[in-house]
Amino acid sequence: MPYGTKSLSTVERYAIENARFLQSRGMKLLVVACNTASALALPAIRRSVSVPVVGMIGPGARAAVAAAGGAAVGVIATESTVKSGAYRRAISELAPASRVVERACPLFVALAEEGWAETEVARLVAEEYLGELRGAAPGALVLGCTHYPILRRVIQDAVGRSVRLIDSGEAAAREVEETIDREALRRTATQELRDLREAGAHARFLCDDLDHFYVTDAAERFAHVAERFLGSAPRRLEAVEVWGHDELHAR
Amino acid sequence: MPYGTKSLSTVERYAIENARFLQSRGMKLLVVACNTASALALPAIRRSVSVPVVGMIGPGARAAVAAAGGAAVGVIATESTVKSGAYRRAISELAPASRVVERACPLFVALAEEGWAETEVARLVAEEYLGELRGAAPGALVLGCTHYPILRRVIQDAVGRSVRLIDSGEAAAREVEETIDREALRRTATQELRDLREAGAHARFLCDDLDHFYVTDAAERFAHVAERFLGSAPRRLEAVEVWGHDELHAR
Repeated sequence: MPYGTKSLSTVERYAIENARFLQSRGMKLLVVACNTASALALPAIRRSVSVPVVGMIGPGARAAVAAAGGAAVGVIATESTVKSGAYRRAISELAPASRVVERACPLFVALAEEGWAETEVARLVAEEYLGELRGAAPGALVLGCTHYPILRRVIQDAVGRSVRLIDSGEAAAREVEETIDREALRRTATQELRDLREAGAHARFLCDDLDHFYVTDAAERFAHVAERFLGSAPRRLEAVEVWGHDELHAR
Repeated sequence: MPYGTKSLSTVERYAIENARFLQSRGMKLLVVACNTASALALPAIRRSVSVPVVGMIGPGARAAVAAAGGAAVGVIATESTVKSGAYRRAISELAPASRVVERACPLFVALAEEGWAETEVARLVAEEYLGELRGAAPGALVLGCTHYPILRRVIQDAVGRSVRLIDSGEAAAREVEETIDREALRRTATQELRDLREAGAHARFLCDDLDHFYVTDAAERFAHVAERFLGSAPRRLEAVEVWGHDELHAR
């Protein structure tokens, strides 16, 4: 990371390696919880693993079209996501008459990571990026980058109260729930947990495993930023090498 | 990139691969024109190539100690550079009694790349990062990241007129000149150019080669940002694969 300034081929390569790594750890469903990776690499990721894959773009686009009520749809995202045109395509497929207004907001990521969400600086940056969006009178605005919901308040102030903000993460979470039900993954997980609990102490360790972060670099920095985003420090954080993993652990 | 948030091992790995790649293209001297890579990986880079290597930290520290006149030395840089303690160590070696005040300024990179150097946002961010530095009354402040000189004006305003700003790039450029003289590289280059000019048309192409950018990703974005920094677009820009190059082209 950050993926937002990288090329299609680089994002694809990293995303596929990460997906295969997680598959080697027994995942049953994969959420590509990064808008840039979803925008650029979703088809490649789907081809590389054998479990259901939920991206950010589809769910975000569907929620935005539903919320916009026929008005224009705004999208703010990284440079690479905007350049990919993924949101524009997804929205146009759902509502061909929809007007889509897109804007890359690269400084938002740095502001969110710095913990400056509620500052005068954040307010000014949001006004600079989003002031002109008001002219398009969008009915909804997609927060098309994982970092942006941290800045929700200043973004809402900059675009005006009448614009519905769409958190692509929340929209994707609902799709995850539907996928779990549809694929009967929930029952499996519940069953598995029961088995684990019956197995006693060892199971307790494995239950903790439900919340487990793998990082490929800068683990300490990740822990710091993750706490800012999640409200509490990651409990299990493991540094791993993923590069070349697909050669070693190819299915 | 960005290197500023990556771990020591990752920066070392990339820096070594890049250095070996450039050596395979016939370089006679290597400038590690990135403070983070210099702070974290200079010894490893020096071990990996057979030409003189100029980093940013030593020249920046020497210029700062000379300019500070016994007062404290301020250093602003990326998170990784500050965390490495490289400037603090270099300054303390030159002037053991010097007080060193360091501060990571991650938003500066995004501001410079966005072209917002002269904005109210940049002024506010500089005040937030540097306001408290004024209390330490530094005699000099090292701009310890390649991006920061773009923001020179707002940085000077934030720390006050009495503080000498040290561009680590300028300091390194002077060391490059000294190294060229010391190693008699200048004569070689002049000689080579004369040979090339005598050789005619083909030589002209090779002379243009003196200004040649290799990028490992996102070439288009690089061209855009480079123009902002250099004042004109790079004339020769080539996308290359460097990863694994050291295995293929090891000396």
